[in-house]
Amino acid sequence: MKKFIITIVCMLCAAPLLFAQTLLSPNENLKLSFRLNEKGTPTYALTFKGKTVISESTLGFVINQKEDFNSNFEITDVQFAEANSVWQPVLGENKEIRDHHKEMLVHLTQKNNGQQLNLRFRLFNDGLGFRYEFPVQSNFRHFRIQEELTVFQLSGNHKAFWIPADYDTNEFPITTSAISEIPKLIDKVREEPLAAKAPTPNVAVQTPLMLKSSDGLYINLHEAALVNYPAMMLNVSATKHQLSAHLVPDKNGVKGYVQTGSVTPWRTIVVSDDARDILASNLILNLNEPCKITDTSWIHPTKYIGVWWEYFIGGGSTWAYSDDRDITIGVTDYQKLKPNGHHGANTEHVKKYINFAAQHGFDAVLVEGWNEGWEDNYAYDKERIYSFTKAYPDFDVKALHQYAAAKGVKLIMQHETTSSVVDYERHLHEAFRFMKDNGYDAVKTGYVGPIIPRSEYHDGQWMVNHYNYVAETAAKYRIMVNSHEAVRPTGMSRTYPNWVAQESARGTEFESFNGNRPEHTTILPFTRLMGGAMDYTPGIFEGDLRRYGNNKAKRSTTLVKQLALYVTMYSPLQMAADLPENYEKHLDAFQFIKDVAADWDNTYILEAEPGDYITIARKSKGKNEWFIGAITDENAREALIDFSFLPKGKTYTATLYTDGKNADWRTNPNSYSIKTMKVTQKTKLKQRLAPSGGLAISIK
Amino acid sequence: MKKFIITIVCMLCAAPLLFAQTLLSPNENLKLSFRLNEKGTPTYALTFKGKTVISESTLGFVINQKEDFNSNFEITDVQFAEANSVWQPVLGENKEIRDHHKEMLVHLTQKNNGQQLNLRFRLFNDGLGFRYEFPVQSNFRHFRIQEELTVFQLSGNHKAFWIPADYDTNEFPITTSAISEIPKLIDKVREEPLAAKAPTPNVAVQTPLMLKSSDGLYINLHEAALVNYPAMMLNVSATKHQLSAHLVPDKNGVKGYVQTGSVTPWRTIVVSDDARDILASNLILNLNEPCKITDTSWIHPTKYIGVWWEYFIGGGSTWAYSDDRDITIGVTDYQKLKPNGHHGANTEHVKKYINFAAQHGFDAVLVEGWNEGWEDNYAYDKERIYSFTKAYPDFDVKALHQYAAAKGVKLIMQHETTSSVVDYERHLHEAFRFMKDNGYDAVKTGYVGPIIPRSEYHDGQWMVNHYNYVAETAAKYRIMVNSHEAVRPTGMSRTYPNWVAQESARGTEFESFNGNRPEHTTILPFTRLMGGAMDYTPGIFEGDLRRYGNNKAKRSTTLVKQLALYVTMYSPLQMAADLPENYEKHLDAFQFIKDVAADWDNTYILEAEPGDYITIARKSKGKNEWFIGAITDENAREALIDFSFLPKGKTYTATLYTDGKNADWRTNPNSYSIKTMKVTQKTKLKQRLAPSGGLAISIK
Repeated sequence: MKKFIITIVCMLCAAPLLFAQTLLSPNENLKLSFRLNEKGTPTYALTFKGKTVISESTLGFVINQKEDFNSNFEITDVQFAEANSVWQPVLGENKEIRDHHKEMLVHLTQKNNGQQLNLRFRLFNDGLGFRYEFPVQSNFRHFRIQEELTVFQLSGNHKAFWIPADYDTNEFPITTSAISEIPKLIDKVREEPLAAKAPTPNVAVQTPLMLKSSDGLYINLHEAALVNYPAMMLNVSATKHQLSAHLVPDKNGVKGYVQTGSVTPWRTIVVSDDARDILASNLILNLNEPCKITDTSWIHPTKYIGVWWEYFIGGGSTWAYSDDRDITIGVTDYQKLKPNGHHGANTEHVKKYINFAAQHGFDAVLVEGWNEGWEDNYAYDKERIYSFTKAYPDFDVKALHQYAAAKGVKLIMQHETTSSVVDYERHLHEAFRFMKDNGYDAVKTGYVGPIIPRSEYHDGQWMVNHYNYVAETAAKYRIMVNSHEAVRPTGMSRTYPNWVAQESARGTEFESFNGNRPEHTTILPFTRLMGGAMDYTPGIFEGDLRRYGNNKAKRSTTLVKQLALYVTMYSPLQMAADLPENYEKHLDAFQFIKDVAADWDNTYILEAEPGDYITIARKSKGKNEWFIGAITDENAREALIDFSFLPKGKTYTATLYTDGKNADWRTNPNSYSIKTMKVTQKTKLKQRLAPSGGLAISIK
Repeated sequence: MKKFIITIVCMLCAAPLLFAQTLLSPNENLKLSFRLNEKGTPTYALTFKGKTVISESTLGFVINQKEDFNSNFEITDVQFAEANSVWQPVLGENKEIRDHHKEMLVHLTQKNNGQQLNLRFRLFNDGLGFRYEFPVQSNFRHFRIQEELTVFQLSGNHKAFWIPADYDTNEFPITTSAISEIPKLIDKVREEPLAAKAPTPNVAVQTPLMLKSSDGLYINLHEAALVNYPAMMLNVSATKHQLSAHLVPDKNGVKGYVQTGSVTPWRTIVVSDDARDILASNLILNLNEPCKITDTSWIHPTKYIGVWWEYFIGGGSTWAYSDDRDITIGVTDYQKLKPNGHHGANTEHVKKYINFAAQHGFDAVLVEGWNEGWEDNYAYDKERIYSFTKAYPDFDVKALHQYAAAKGVKLIMQHETTSSVVDYERHLHEAFRFMKDNGYDAVKTGYVGPIIPRSEYHDGQWMVNHYNYVAETAAKYRIMVNSHEAVRPTGMSRTYPNWVAQESARGTEFESFNGNRPEHTTILPFTRLMGGAMDYTPGIFEGDLRRYGNNKAKRSTTLVKQLALYVTMYSPLQMAADLPENYEKHLDAFQFIKDVAADWDNTYILEAEPGDYITIARKSKGKNEWFIGAITDENAREALIDFSFLPKGKTYTATLYTDGKNADWRTNPNSYSIKTMKVTQKTKLKQRLAPSGGLAISIK
């Protein structure tokens, strides 16, 4: 009798499971469908206001040695939930973030072997997140991922803003093309000279991937909460308009080592028919774990200058102290080396930067090239490249700390690893202790070149764990992290808000290689910045590098566009990257950089079209001050600023930094004018932006 | 005119360099010849008392992508030197060691590209050491070793005592065969079940390799001072009787990453016509760098017992605390886990071991399985396996430290890594600090299973650097290291005397798998122990493991042979490996283990033939006490003990522990008798050893 009852109960609960499960977003604009197909393979589909975002797409894995972990499933349970809460990021674009979503958790069991796999879907008004969950189960404890089979079947030949998939770099220029054109364009893009490259064998692109459909949908594909898992790239089937997960392997070809009782990152699909909603989305942050740091009082927004740009411009300044390249860390006596006479990070020179920072109200000075080892920073073949605790003879750590502290300025340490990551890990604790002993509270990490351990790529599971480990360990020392050449962010700054920014894309340094296009920064917020703040290092006033020496590169923007980037490129860590002497020549324009905030109460996306233009207004954290940035691509345009975000009934003074009348990034890039005007909530302003120009406004 | 003078000078110095260079050992028994052959390839040859040890053999490298770095050389300089000095090891077989050698340093330059390579030969009375040196030179700074081409051309089809080459393990049983037989025997030997195996693709064997020629020479090939370089295995050309270097690669196939301004390990050839000289040789220690630890007062010989053997005998005791295998370190709350009830390292049980150690004068107790993680110690696929600072709930670190300290006993910590080496390095400092905070001064490290980083093998350059790094870091914390499953030693204990012992061969644990042969310990001193002390863990009194449960293994020696091993198997770290209860049954025989020293003023090799027998006498460090051990293989024999090593004119009481009359390792292994006799310098004793039997003598 007992058996009979159980059967009935199971039939009752199993019955609805044979049909598709659906979930609606809180505002019901998005609809998710889930079902098992005839092979028992999990599938999902997504619509936005009735339009197809993702048509039926399969899910699952190949594990171990070609083991099927994507078919022959049955649904054993489905659970629904809804959450609606508000949380406060430590640093951010908004003081408060609402997390309102509906959730569906599908329990699956493979019929042949009883292996369990759960799928958790969270549907927000601005998109979908879903992840795989591997529940604890007896006899299924460890497995290797051969491939994740997640498919994103698009509804057409969308326009894509893409960089080629590569296991070691994300510093490619961004190409805009139809999906169908990617195969014929990708090889050329991959020729881009970069410090370490490991292209995928097939046609694939990286996330965040921005798409625009012919029926007016903006779709962004990425991932959230990348923990103990490789980064996801996307295979491209150009004819089927199909994208599918391509996880970054280790060099033995394994994509991931998994222990059950764990989850994958969230696969994210942010979608809207208004491009501004993509930039305004907090979906990725919402899918990350809450802050794991109890006391966050030491985490602060930072505006900084640095001994940095001078290394790129061809003026002769070097990271290295000596021209002698036969260096063995711990053996070479630097006191006996002959200095090359043009080492950037020397005490007197750094003091000038500190003076400038103090004079103009900057929080900090980054100093690169302060430590032993740069003479022979030979990637991959050399394991112990740098000392992380020994400064060059001409860089007086103690004296500079005191000098800076007396002027209220912090120094930012650099830990370039040249990707000898194991060596960095070996010295991580002593490196952080050295920082704390000398008054540093922020580090810029760097991962140029191929990785040691030599089984690993920049974006594989092992390195993902490394970056997270550094952020977590730094938090214990109350150190903020700004990682360069790391895997692109996935919203982890919510969990570790001391991980204040990353590079992880083509930054301003490429302006010194003639490498950025005018449209570049109108795309980045739709791609790279979807995962988190970027240390883009804007603020280049002297755009013609021929001034310094042999470098023939020219900045690809007007001067005012450089100002606007402080608003359009969100980061709580903002550099004024140019040389102090160049700012001194344009102190009026420089005032905007001095004034602009780096942490915000509110953000208003006023205008946006990927590849064309972006206009954003933001309110300073805790202050009645607003800053507006507007940028355009190679085409001039008229920005429309609607000041309705201002409080009612009050009049404010706005200072406008505009491109000069004949400004043009090619012919007249440094022409600008500054004026003030009164604005209220009702003001609407039309303002012309020059080709690759901008507009910056501060309001008090 | 200036040019002309230079030419003359060069001709003068170049003239003799066209002919072979020779070097004689201090006693002139050994003669080394060096010349460049017609291809400009460096070659060497070695004779002992006129007999060929190595006939002309080539030297050099293939580097980078098949670049020739072994021919087209010219000799640019040859320098000769002689050294004769005495040094004192911190712990050792002898209080003083003489380093008397003649040296020849040959400077070579490759004619086509100017790349320089030096060869340094040191010729001792007991053998030859030579190494490659890569001087600092402009335009040749970093290179990869594709293969080292060092050849050892033997004079005939010698008898060899060998284990198969393997990048991940050295725990094979030792095979004795002619060189010509190795190819047909090796596959079978490689079937041996071991935790991690990575056999070489070709026929090759490991060093230390012991050889015996038909004309009566004993030749031992190994290396000294293995630093920042992979271990050397030896390719076997069975028909040519030729051995050649086979360096352990990383998984990308690179053998070594070299920066000029460095040296290789020494290739060592210990040779004599008396097997005893091989065991007495200090050549390998002499070729290592002097001690790098300034204050060595904390390094001491240690006799210990341990919660260890009980895990092997099948009695049910486990390293793991719980049977729940779903463990995540840092997440799993062990307080909430159900204990399995048979966890070995529990406080009460450990106290019994401490009591026993204190009662019988042992210095320390090793406790394995004390820390979180053993339930799911899944090699290679799991990176964070153990906590190195969190004890199991039933192991009270503080209480046990106090308990042991009150009784004058130390605890030895275990750091099993299961070869998740990166994770161990991440936690190394906190692990060592935890040890010091809790009174530990010695650690047993373990490397079971394949390595993470997943590009690496146990014996490759990266792991070699790891083992050295652990020893060096431990020294900073005043911690002694006993490494298991590490690369075999190469005399590094001279430089880091806190690296007191290693396993790195087939130890006593294999007695519990029915795995050791009677001859095993008559070969090990000629092979594995040539590089340094072995933590062989002898002292198994209860040899029939059927007593405990389902384990059918039986010890392959008599009980007395177990005693003799404390003398024949040199180690300053000696375990009494059996259960206390088994010693309590044989307290009379146990007395020898209690008495025997672990550090020595002098060592006298009385009898020795690899594979057959060894008889050694040693004088205790700083005491007028002597201990003698004699062992034999499966054949009974009569040992001849010549007491002439004793001081003149004094009479001493010797206690003899002998095999019983009918003792036999197969049928009657635990039969022994104990008697005393008076001995003087003139005494000569003949004593029968049973099949796989032994003899142990203590003299006061």
